[in-house]
Amino acid sequence: MGSQAQAEGPYRNPDNKNLSDPGEGTYPVPYKKPTVAEITASLHRIRGFMETATPTRVVDKKTGAPILDFKKPVATAITEASHSDMGIMVYEMGVVHAGMVKAQEVTGDKRFTDLTARHFNFFADKLPYFRAQEKEFKLERGNSFSRFLDPRALDDAGSMCAAMMRARALKIGPDLSHIIATCSDWVVNKQFRLPDGTMARERPQAVSLWADDLYMSVPALAELGRMTGKRAHFDDAVKNVLQMSGYLFNKQQNLYTHGWNANNPDAPNFYWARANGWAVMSMSDLLDVLPKDHPGYPQVLAQLRTTLKSIGERQSGSGLWHQMLDRNDSYLETSASAMFVYVFAHAINQGWISPTTYGSIAQAGWAGLSTRINDKGQVDGTCVGTTFASDQVYYYNRPTSPFALHGYGPTLLAGAEMIKLINNPNVEVQHKVRTYHYMPKGAGQTNYREHH
Amino acid sequence: MGSQAQAEGPYRNPDNKNLSDPGEGTYPVPYKKPTVAEITASLHRIRGFMETATPTRVVDKKTGAPILDFKKPVATAITEASHSDMGIMVYEMGVVHAGMVKAQEVTGDKRFTDLTARHFNFFADKLPYFRAQEKEFKLERGNSFSRFLDPRALDDAGSMCAAMMRARALKIGPDLSHIIATCSDWVVNKQFRLPDGTMARERPQAVSLWADDLYMSVPALAELGRMTGKRAHFDDAVKNVLQMSGYLFNKQQNLYTHGWNANNPDAPNFYWARANGWAVMSMSDLLDVLPKDHPGYPQVLAQLRTTLKSIGERQSGSGLWHQMLDRNDSYLETSASAMFVYVFAHAINQGWISPTTYGSIAQAGWAGLSTRINDKGQVDGTCVGTTFASDQVYYYNRPTSPFALHGYGPTLLAGAEMIKLINNPNVEVQHKVRTYHYMPKGAGQTNYREHH
Amino acid sequence: MGSQAQAEGPYRNPDNKNLSDPGEGTYPVPYKKPTVAEITASLHRIRGFMETATPTRVVDKKTGAPILDFKKPVATAITEASHSDMGIMVYEMGVVHAGMVKAQEVTGDKRFTDLTARHFNFFADKLPYFRAQEKEFKLERGNSFSRFLDPRALDDAGSMCAAMMRARALKIGPDLSHIIATCSDWVVNKQFRLPDGTMARERPQAVSLWADDLYMSVPALAELGRMTGKRAHFDDAVKNVLQMSGYLFNKQQNLYTHGWNANNPDAPNFYWARANGWAVMSMSDLLDVLPKDHPGYPQVLAQLRTTLKSIGERQSGSGLWHQMLDRNDSYLETSASAMFVYVFAHAINQGWISPTTYGSIAQAGWAGLSTRINDKGQVDGTCVGTTFASDQVYYYNRPTSPFALHGYGPTLLAGAEMIKLINNPNVEVQHKVRTYHYMPKGAGQTNYREHH
Repeated sequence: MGSQAQAEGPYRNPDNKNLSDPGEGTYPVPYKKPTVAEITASLHRIRGFMETATPTRVVDKKTGAPILDFKKPVATAITEASHSDMGIMVYEMGVVHAGMVKAQEVTGDKRFTDLTARHFNFFADKLPYFRAQEKEFKLERGNSFSRFLDPRALDDAGSMCAAMMRARALKIGPDLSHIIATCSDWVVNKQFRLPDGTMARERPQAVSLWADDLYMSVPALAELGRMTGKRAHFDDAVKNVLQMSGYLFNKQQNLYTHGWNANNPDAPNFYWARANGWAVMSMSDLLDVLPKDHPGYPQVLAQLRTTLKSIGERQSGSGLWHQMLDRNDSYLETSASAMFVYVFAHAINQGWISPTTYGSIAQAGWAGLSTRINDKGQVDGTCVGTTFASDQVYYYNRPTSPFALHGYGPTLLAGAEMIKLINNPNVEVQHKVRTYHYMPKGAGQTNYREHH
Repeated sequence: MGSQAQAEGPYRNPDNKNLSDPGEGTYPVPYKKPTVAEITASLHRIRGFMETATPTRVVDKKTGAPILDFKKPVATAITEASHSDMGIMVYEMGVVHAGMVKAQEVTGDKRFTDLTARHFNFFADKLPYFRAQEKEFKLERGNSFSRFLDPRALDDAGSMCAAMMRARALKIGPDLSHIIATCSDWVVNKQFRLPDGTMARERPQAVSLWADDLYMSVPALAELGRMTGKRAHFDDAVKNVLQMSGYLFNKQQNLYTHGWNANNPDAPNFYWARANGWAVMSMSDLLDVLPKDHPGYPQVLAQLRTTLKSIGERQSGSGLWHQMLDRNDSYLETSASAMFVYVFAHAINQGWISPTTYGSIAQAGWAGLSTRINDKGQVDGTCVGTTFASDQVYYYNRPTSPFALHGYGPTLLAGAEMIKLINNPNVEVQHKVRTYHYMPKGAGQTNYREHH
Repeated sequence: MGSQAQAEGPYRNPDNKNLSDPGEGTYPVPYKKPTVAEITASLHRIRGFMETATPTRVVDKKTGAPILDFKKPVATAITEASHSDMGIMVYEMGVVHAGMVKAQEVTGDKRFTDLTARHFNFFADKLPYFRAQEKEFKLERGNSFSRFLDPRALDDAGSMCAAMMRARALKIGPDLSHIIATCSDWVVNKQFRLPDGTMARERPQAVSLWADDLYMSVPALAELGRMTGKRAHFDDAVKNVLQMSGYLFNKQQNLYTHGWNANNPDAPNFYWARANGWAVMSMSDLLDVLPKDHPGYPQVLAQLRTTLKSIGERQSGSGLWHQMLDRNDSYLETSASAMFVYVFAHAINQGWISPTTYGSIAQAGWAGLSTRINDKGQVDGTCVGTTFASDQVYYYNRPTSPFALHGYGPTLLAGAEMIKLINNPNVEVQHKVRTYHYMPKGAGQTNYREHH
C-alpha cells in the first residue's frame, strides 16, 4: 500500500481520556472525531501530489524535449506524460477539479484551485496548436487533445465538461466556451442512447447501459441547465437518473448493478462499489442545482435516500466499503468509499438526510478513508479502470493502485465535505459511551443522568 | 481467551466409533451429543467462579477494611468490589440468578441458588444501612445501593426485579418486598415511554428505543403479572413485545435492529446479536408465565417463532453466532450465542417449536459455547457493555472480556436447558450417518434399511 | 489438495499480450479463455485415473485372489475393491458414465466410453453369478450386486438406470434390459413417496424429502419416457421437478434447501451447494428429452432459469462455489461447482439461456474447476457423501477428498460441455478490456472506437 501517513493500527480512540477503561477497545482505523486541521492537512498532501503528477507542458514524443515553437505543429508533439499516469483531460480529472473547487470553498484556500486554473489555462492556450496538428497529421486518438477536438464517448466529455462549467461559474481559469460547446454537444446530442433516451454504449454488448454513465452525463446536463437556464437539460438529467435506475437498480438489494445489456436483460447482477459511487454522486450533483420545483426533484431525492440507506447498511467494520458491495470477502475499495463518504456528508449538510446515524457513518467512513492517504499525498487502494464485465472473478481481482486517479477527486470531495460537516452549525456531535452521536441541533435534549 | 477447559480443536466426534471412517472429518468445536455430566460440570465451574467473583461485604472505600459497625453510616462505606468487576446489583446479575435458579431446578443441586440466597440476604440486611448513608451524605450514584434506593433506568430495575420475584416464588432468600416494590414501580410507572406506551430512553438521541429494553422490562412485567395476578401487567408486557417489534423488527431480515430513534426513524439497521438475544429471552420469559388464554399469547409465540427461524439460519459453522448477525466477518460472540442456545432448547422443551432441526441447532450451539467456558469457570468471548450506536466500526470492534458479566447468566441458562433437552422424554435423538437428528417421540418410524 | 496439474497461482491472463499493462492484475485461478486442447487433456487425465480406479473383476473377499470359476457361486466372491474406494455400481458412477458419453460425443474419441462399455459388460456377464450367490447365501447388502438384484432406494436405482438407458440409445455396451427393468421398476413403482407422488425418504425424519432425489429419479424417468415413448414417465418427471421445487425452493433466495421433513415443515433452510447441483442437473437432463410440446416444458425451463440466475450471482471470486451457497466463509466445493459449470454451458448450448453473462460465468467457473484436477487425473476438493442434516456445523465441516466420486462425473460433463461452448458457432467470445464477453452471434455490432 505504499508509505502511510498514519501510524499503523490498531488505534485507540483518543477522545476517550480514561486510559484504563475496560469498555474501550482498539480499532483497525483511527476511530475518532477528526479535526478540521487533520483533514485540511490531508487535502493539502493530496493537492501537492496532484501538482507534481500533472505537468502541463507540450513535449516531443520522441525526445521528451519541450516544444517551444507553437506556430507550426509537429506530429510528435504531445502533452507531457504524468510520472503517475494521470491524464489531465480524463474524466477522473474532472472529479479532481470538483474536489479542488469544493476544498477551496470550504477552506478558503485558493491554492486548491490553482491546479484547476493551471490545467484550464493550458487547455485554452494549446487547443489551437493541437487542432492545427490534427488538421495536418490526422492523428486521431494519438492527438493529445483528441478528447476535446473529437469526443467519442461520455467518458471524453461529461465529467470534464461539468468541471469546466463549475469553474466558469466561479470565475476560475480562462474562458473555455468553445470546449464546453463541443463536449456538451456530445452529451446532449451525439451520445448513443436507447430509443427512450437513456444514455447507452455499444460495448461490451451491442446495446449496453453502464451505471458509470450516470456520472458521465448527469452532472454535465445539470450544469448545462444551470448555465443556460434551459429546463430541457434538467429534464434530460432527471430522465436519465430515473430511467437508468429503472434498468439498473435492484429493488431487493437497493443497489445498482454495474450494467445492463439488451442481449440478456435479466442477467445476474454485479454490485460493483464504484458504479454505486457514480450513481449517488450523480444524484447529489443534480440535486445541487436542480430547481426545487422541478417535478423530478422529489423522485431523485427519494432514489438517493433509498440508495444511501442501503449503502450505509453495507459499510464494513473498518469504515470502508467492499469492491463488491454485497460481498465481504472482496477487498476494501478506496474510490467508492470516498464517494460514499462525500455523498453522506454532503447530503447531511444539504439537509437531504438526517445527521442521525448518517453522520456517524460518514465519520467512520472518513476514519477508514484517512488510512488510504499516504504521506506523499497519494490515495491508495483504488480499483483501476474497470469495464462492465460478466463474472465475479474479474471484479474481485481487479488490481488496486495509488496511480488509479479515480480515488483522488472523491477523496478531496469527501475531506472537504467532512470539514463542512464538522463545522455544520445545525449538527451536534456528542461523544458518549465511547461512540459518536450526530444529531440535529435543537431536536430534543438527551439525558445521561441514568447512566452509571 | 484465557485458559481453556476443553482441549483445543480440531475435534473428532467420539460418537462415531469407526476411527477409519473416511466420511468423518474434524470440527472446530466438540461436535457430539453432550452428556449431562459434562454440562453439569461446566455449570459448577461457572458457579464456583461466580462465588469468588461476587463478594457480599461492606468495606471502607479508602482503606479496604471491612465495615463492622452498621449502626451509624459512614460516607466511605461501599460494597466490596469484585476482583472481576462484576456488580452484584447490575442487570446482568439478574440473569445470573435466573440461570442459577434454572440450574437448581434441572439438577436438583441447591448449591446453585446458594449464591442467589447469599446476595439477596445481603441486600435485605444492608439496605437500611445504605439508605441511612444516603440520607446523611447524599452520594447519589456514589451510593452502592443507589439502584435500589433511587432507580433511574430500566437497567437499574427490571432484570433484578424479575429475579427477586422468581426467587420469592421459589422461596429462595429473604423477603425483598420493599425492593420489589421500588423497582417494579420504576418499570410500571416511571420509565420514560413513547406516547404509545413503548419503553424508551432519552439517549443517545432524545427519543430512542433499545431492543435491550425488552429484557429490561418485559420479564419484570411478566413476573409482576404472575405475582399479583393483575392482567394489566401482562397486557403491558405483551404490548411492549409487539410494539417494540413493530419499531425494531425488520421483516426482510427477520431480525431486530439494535435501536430506533425519532430523529431518523428510517435509519440504517444494526443487527447486533445480543440485542436479538434480549428479544428472544424476553419473549420466552413472557410465554413462561403468560396465561395461554391471553389474546397476546399467539402473537408473542408467532413473533418468537419467526425470530428463532431467522436466528437458526444464521448460526455459524462453529455453532456460535456473529456479533453482527448478518455479518460473518464480525467475531463470534458468546453472550448472544448463549441466549440463543437457551431459547432454542427452552422453546423445544416447552413445545413452542419442534425438536426437529432446532434440537440440532441447539446442540451445535452448545458445542460452540462449551469452548468458551474455561477451566476457571470463566465465560470468555463476551462483548462488553455496548451502547446503541450508529456505525459498524463501533460494533465490530467492541472488545470481548471474560469479565463481561453478560455472558454468565445466559450460559448457565443454556447449559441447564440443554440438560433438560437431553432428558426430555418427548424428544428422541438419533446419531445417524455422522450427525444428529432430533425428533418428536412417536412421530413416525425412520428406516435406514436402504442405507449402504 | 494433492498434486496439482496447474502451476500454483497467482496467474496472469496470457490472453493479454501487453506484459506491462497496469490494468491487468493476477488471479487466484487461470482466468483466460480455455483451449479445447487443454480441456481435452484434462478429460483424458480423469479418464485415465477412472480406468485404474475401477477394476471389474470378481475376487475372493478373504484372499483377494481372482475368482475364475463362475459355475458355482461361493459366499466370499465380491467385486474387486477400488484402490480409491469408488464403487462401480453407485449413483455417482452413473454420472461418470454420463460424463464419458458426453466426452465421446464432443471429442469423437471412443476411449471415453470404453470405460462405460467395460463396466456394463461386466454387469451383464456377472449378474447371473451374483444372483446365484444371493439365492444360495442370502448375503443381502453383502452381495456385491445387491443394488441390481434388490434395489432399496433411489440411490441404488435412478442414476445408474439413466446411464444404462443412455448407453443403450447410443449402442454402447451390452443389452442390459433386465437391469433396466429392475431399476426403473423401483423408481416408477416402489420408491416411498408422499401421497401427492413426490419422491420421499423415511430418513432422517420419518417423512423427508431430499433435493438430491431429483437427480436420483428425474433423469431416469426422463430416459424411460424417451426409451418407451410413454408420456406418463415424462409427467412423473415434470411433476417431481415442480412438486420438489414447491417444497424445497426458497423464493427469496431462489435456491434449494437440502431437505424438508414433515415433522417441522417450516424449519430453517440449508443451502447446500451439491443439492442445488443435483436440482439443476435434473432439470437440464429432463429438458434434454422432454417433448417441447409437453405442458411442463415451459415450467421446468422457467424454474431452471430462475435457479441458474441465483446460482450465477453467488459465484465466488475464484470461479468456484461455496459448500453452502449463501455462506462465503464455507469452503469452495468442487462437485457442485462442476455441476453448475456443466449446466450453465449446456443451457447456453441448448439455447435455454443467453450466452451473454452466463458464458462468462461458465468460463470463470471452469477456470476455478481446472485447478481441482490434479496431474494424476484426480478431482480434488469434493465434499464426501453427506446426509440431510440439521445444523451448519455439520455441513461446514464435511471433509473433502479426491476419492469422493461425486466430483468426477460432473467435471467430465463440465469439461465436455465447455468444449462445445468454445466451438459453438452461435456464440462469439470477445476478449476486450481484459475480460471476456460472450454474445449471441449476429446480435448486433459492438463498437470500441470510443475506447482509449
